[in-house]
Amino acid sequence: MPPGTRAVLLLSGGLDSATVLAWATRAGYAVHALSFRYGQRHQLELERARALAARWSVAQHVVCDIDLRPFGGSALTGNLAVPKDRDAQAMATGIPVTYVPARNTIFLSFAMAWAEVLGAQDVFIGVNALDYSGYPDCRPEFIAAFERLANLATRTGVEGTTRLAVHAPLMQMTKREIIELGRSLGVDYGMTTSCYDPAPDGAACGHCDACQLRRRGFEQAGLTDPARYQSVDDPPD
Amino acid sequence: MPPGTRAVLLLSGGLDSATVLAWATRAGYAVHALSFRYGQRHQLELERARALAARWSVAQHVVCDIDLRPFGGSALTGNLAVPKDRDAQAMATGIPVTYVPARNTIFLSFAMAWAEVLGAQDVFIGVNALDYSGYPDCRPEFIAAFERLANLATRTGVEGTTRLAVHAPLMQMTKREIIELGRSLGVDYGMTTSCYDPAPDGAACGHCDACQLRRRGFEQAGLTDPARYQSVDDPPD
Repeated sequence: MPPGTRAVLLLSGGLDSATVLAWATRAGYAVHALSFRYGQRHQLELERARALAARWSVAQHVVCDIDLRPFGGSALTGNLAVPKDRDAQAMATGIPVTYVPARNTIFLSFAMAWAEVLGAQDVFIGVNALDYSGYPDCRPEFIAAFERLANLATRTGVEGTTRLAVHAPLMQMTKREIIELGRSLGVDYGMTTSCYDPAPDGAACGHCDACQLRRRGFEQAGLTDPARYQSVDDPPD
Repeated sequence: MPPGTRAVLLLSGGLDSATVLAWATRAGYAVHALSFRYGQRHQLELERARALAARWSVAQHVVCDIDLRPFGGSALTGNLAVPKDRDAQAMATGIPVTYVPARNTIFLSFAMAWAEVLGAQDVFIGVNALDYSGYPDCRPEFIAAFERLANLATRTGVEGTTRLAVHAPLMQMTKREIIELGRSLGVDYGMTTSCYDPAPDGAACGHCDACQLRRRGFEQAGLTDPARYQSVDDPPD
């Protein structure tokens, strides 16, 4: 790949997408970062996405406004309570109420649109199928199906020009491995936010699925999590 | 299908989606109509979508705000000129500048989100692969790939519950056949707008691809097009 090759990268402000951002930047891509204001309960992740985009000197950072709230159906965009202190077995089975219907499909569709306009052949997404919340749109078969769709949905499907590749470099990594990779690339995880339900001052709850997965990842890596928590008296399950 | 079965229907305010709306309503579906404010050059089609939704007594009509303008790349959302008076051969080859990158993928992703929340198994879209502008995301292989994706992207992909079907009942019909079908179902095509570049007062230009396809369809059906045109001195090519 020639240095400066354009790529579109989905940037949430979380630990995973920050790691992918570092990875793609170090690999020499000119990163066009894409974030969304989608009716999520808190804006903290957008602030973090902006800071990360600046830190890693992306070529461009666009925040798209899309409103998923009219559909309801998720604790992340509606009034349902975010579940806390679920044990590992509960997380490994079923789909929690924090699942936002079709979110990654929508995000990737926008990334595909931008990639087509930029003439970019590469889209990066930080999904992960090991230490995750059980969302259907984080699995390798979903990413493969999206890539297939993308190459039918766009000009290339008719004109046979640029092919689009959807890269999910963290797919088969544990949270511990992701954190170790990110540290080796120079990611400051203090700039990221993972919590589904942070306090108004930005402190993480420490108990939602995302906090638990994050805390366990740092613990297993033997590292201190630089995130600020409201209370983390209990060890992660 | 039991009467009152919920379905999500993409409603643009154009001739095709109005026909699908009539078809799904007459078939007994409780239609949840979905339209978008996506940075298109004119708001006329949203007004028409609202009027059609009321005429056909849909169960619900949601207009989602999404902004595709930051990406540019289309005459329908940017400053590029809408091409006029292209002949049939030009329309049959290549992808025109009115193509909006990824538009139908984005629209279907939102429809899929809503369907999942509603527990609906059916999504309707008025795409057509015969008398059309050559957009890659109007072809049967695109619809099939999206349906496959949808059944991996959502709860059903993990839990094996509801399967989603994407219906494109107009796919293999000519514009003439669509118009004849719609008339038989009671569609008032005076309530629809097809023009890519209408005048401020809503009058159609008569010369863009969409106007030409529409005018030719009515002519071939031996019917008068109730749309109001700025000038239609020339017969459609």
